[in-house]
Amino acid sequence: MSHPHPFDQAIALTPTGPHQYSGATSPPYGNMVGPFGGVTAAVVMQSVMQHVQRLGEPISLTVNYAAALADGAFALTARPVRTNRSTQHWVMEITQPDANGEPTTVITATAVTAARRETWGVDDEPMPPVPAPADVPRARLEARVEWVSRYAMHPITGALPTVWEGQGDGSLMQMWVRDDPLRALDFCSLTALADVFYPRVWLRRARPVPTGTVSMTVYFHAGSRELEATGSGWLLAQARAQAFRNGFFDQTAQLWNEAGVLLATTHQIVYYKE
Amino acid sequence: MSHPHPFDQAIALTPTGPHQYSGATSPPYGNMVGPFGGVTAAVVMQSVMQHVQRLGEPISLTVNYAAALADGAFALTARPVRTNRSTQHWVMEITQPDANGEPTTVITATAVTAARRETWGVDDEPMPPVPAPADVPRARLEARVEWVSRYAMHPITGALPTVWEGQGDGSLMQMWVRDDPLRALDFCSLTALADVFYPRVWLRRARPVPTGTVSMTVYFHAGSRELEATGSGWLLAQARAQAFRNGFFDQTAQLWNEAGVLLATTHQIVYYKE
Repeated sequence: MSHPHPFDQAIALTPTGPHQYSGATSPPYGNMVGPFGGVTAAVVMQSVMQHVQRLGEPISLTVNYAAALADGAFALTARPVRTNRSTQHWVMEITQPDANGEPTTVITATAVTAARRETWGVDDEPMPPVPAPADVPRARLEARVEWVSRYAMHPITGALPTVWEGQGDGSLMQMWVRDDPLRALDFCSLTALADVFYPRVWLRRARPVPTGTVSMTVYFHAGSRELEATGSGWLLAQARAQAFRNGFFDQTAQLWNEAGVLLATTHQIVYYKE
Repeated sequence: MSHPHPFDQAIALTPTGPHQYSGATSPPYGNMVGPFGGVTAAVVMQSVMQHVQRLGEPISLTVNYAAALADGAFALTARPVRTNRSTQHWVMEITQPDANGEPTTVITATAVTAARRETWGVDDEPMPPVPAPADVPRARLEARVEWVSRYAMHPITGALPTVWEGQGDGSLMQMWVRDDPLRALDFCSLTALADVFYPRVWLRRARPVPTGTVSMTVYFHAGSRELEATGSGWLLAQARAQAFRNGFFDQTAQLWNEAGVLLATTHQIVYYKE
């Protein structure tokens, strides 16, 4: 392609050996320090998706942010440590050289893939009643970080505060969101979207304290068929916190497509200062 | 102690080298095949808790069940792969010998520990209004598996069905629960309690189909102080599913102490048949 989507550039990996890849951070998805954490999680997912030994589709992914990924090149390993009849377990790691050139761990991760079969099923968490995407204006964000401009975000409730006077009283956010420019949803972009929410503590306290995601888990309820049915359409993204205590809060979130199919549920634990 | 608590026996590990331990499954916590998964997660937590290089207290733990742990001995490795100023990242693995005596991966896991500081905080998920533990009778379970008898479970809503005629219409369970015999709560027993719920699909469908947890994550909102304040008291345990689709469902759960402090939030993704 002469004009690949910036997301495809951001998650591109070059095989460098068995279970090994090299990659590089991508300025269009830059955050305050290093890249948007959602894209880092997507890169980890991509290392499994393009692995020649992969069995089936993603069921779960956990990414631990051990240190800030520095802008530039990184090495990624992805190993299938156990392959069963219908499930496969993966261990991943991203390293970057330290000051002495020694590789040091920046990201640890695990994943499970599986050959899914058709079974009975039901969504027990229905999509909440919300206005249609066209009826909700796009957030006009002062894009102090680049990655925010890679998503069209239409907040319904819980938009980023515009005054910071400690007036917060809840942590619930709901928004319509999709890639900008448009891109058909896949497991990697769904992974990135699981991290698309600004920090819950900023909303709950209406104070922009320093934060950083420590660990994120994504459970994939969508298979290829649900992704294909979603295409480049809107997702309803909902997030809230359950507890803030002594430097860490959690976030629990859901992502539905516009037809109301729950595509993923996701959780993270986040460091906050003060 | 002449009579150690069966839980302490079940999670006992013997150091066998740097970052290495040996352990063994424990009949009092036996499940249908191998041990109760919550105790296996607790053993993994214990490998971090008793590691000489541990910094701080647990923030998160993810355990992936790659295969059924066979009754008997196992080897466990726990490595601190990154130690920062106030956080530390861990990678763990349990292996057992295969038919040829080669070690094979049964469990993969990651954890984060941290030196927590006092900060602003709030519980955003308040304990639901429920009757007091003394006003809720203990479940009389046909203990077809041994581990169930290691917990006093007092279900408030969503008790294990007694008829299996497909009459289910929700997945919410709430119960008071604690160790039996009594034992002061610590990070390992809280980890095990995060897995104390019977499979959500049994409740939702009122059909006891085969299931198995694939991956579980625990976020610890409690520090030592909250654990000490809880002692051997009751926990309110609440769990529900968000989606059941094509062989896997999720579970999202909370554990409060009787004073209403949210001690842990936890999630898992579970295989189900049919």
